[in-house]
Amino acid sequence: MAYIQVADGLPGIRGLLAFSPATAKPMCELAQALLCGPHSLTPAEREMIATYVSSQNDCYYCQTCHGSTAAQHLGGGSGDYELIREVAQNYREAAISGKMKALLAIAGKVQQDGKQVGPEDIERARQQGASDKEIHDTVLIAAAFCMFNRYVDGLGTWQPRDPEMYREIGKQTASLGYAGRDWKQPLQTPAKADLDR
Amino acid sequence: MAYIQVADGLPGIRGLLAFSPATAKPMCELAQALLCGPHSLTPAEREMIATYVSSQNDCYYCQTCHGSTAAQHLGGGSGDYELIREVAQNYREAAISGKMKALLAIAGKVQQDGKQVGPEDIERARQQGASDKEIHDTVLIAAAFCMFNRYVDGLGTWQPRDPEMYREIGKQTASLGYAGRDWKQPLQTPAKADLDR
Repeated sequence: MAYIQVADGLPGIRGLLAFSPATAKPMCELAQALLCGPHSLTPAEREMIATYVSSQNDCYYCQTCHGSTAAQHLGGGSGDYELIREVAQNYREAAISGKMKALLAIAGKVQQDGKQVGPEDIERARQQGASDKEIHDTVLIAAAFCMFNRYVDGLGTWQPRDPEMYREIGKQTASLGYAGRDWKQPLQTPAKADLDR
Repeated sequence: MAYIQVADGLPGIRGLLAFSPATAKPMCELAQALLCGPHSLTPAEREMIATYVSSQNDCYYCQTCHGSTAAQHLGGGSGDYELIREVAQNYREAAISGKMKALLAIAGKVQQDGKQVGPEDIERARQQGASDKEIHDTVLIAAAFCMFNRYVDGLGTWQPRDPEMYREIGKQTASLGYAGRDWKQPLQTPAKADLDR
């Protein structure tokens, strides 16, 4: 269904990662470095930035996968999907920190055009306690999702509308991360088993 | 001069790559996989796609570096800067292949929004002989430069206006590529020596 010949049953970026392992490896390592592992922003907060940018870019697959991953990081077994919806729709009113609101404002400007970020945006984030690394990583997460979103949409990938599938993807990603995974599998075995129940 | 504390004398993305080695490594490996090495599109053609997208995103640093790299790939010692200017300004009239024009049309749509790419754009590229890999790599180069451009501009990096500096960067990149380089050096030694003459 994508514009190029990818394997059946691999939605969104998964079919593309399987199609092109040479580019998949650094892309997944970049996502891993930005979104996983120890950081002064929680994995949920970093996934929120990814979700918000993907939502602004109107990429259904990425916003739903990363929204689900953020929700799973937040809410243990069931996930806090409501907070993630609030962040995507109107983060200014969501129950998140002032620092996260300032960082999401920067991410929203990066999504439009990097040059829209001004010294006043950076100053506001600093006043809310943001460090150089947090500002750097926010800009790069936002920029990276401008890449991922365009990659997924630009090649016309299959983006199913099954909420359960995205819930499973979120659970898997929150536990397994991005690097070193086998994207040729049509979702990994436990999730596929769950979906087949 | 950037919004975060990067080392002096490192323009554009170089200061950011030195600031964040953990993300620099996969980003440079992605650029290497897309722009360097054997491919049915020449390195100059792939750098043209990067240059065109960076120009559409109005990122001075990236369009000038990659334009210079493309020119150096084309023209041996002196570089064919005129062709690259034509491609950036109006590729439809430039002396490039019909396939490259069809691929640049796809890249231009990806730059705006991945969803703008339609089956008719893909069909036109195929009629000009483009393969699945060429279409895939064109979309991903365009998407990746939507990331690189936003990263460079969103963090307010130093983007000098010295044409000689960009000429040297183009020469270096055309010969050394992107991966495995030491970005902490304020341009590498031979170029620095050239600049100091």
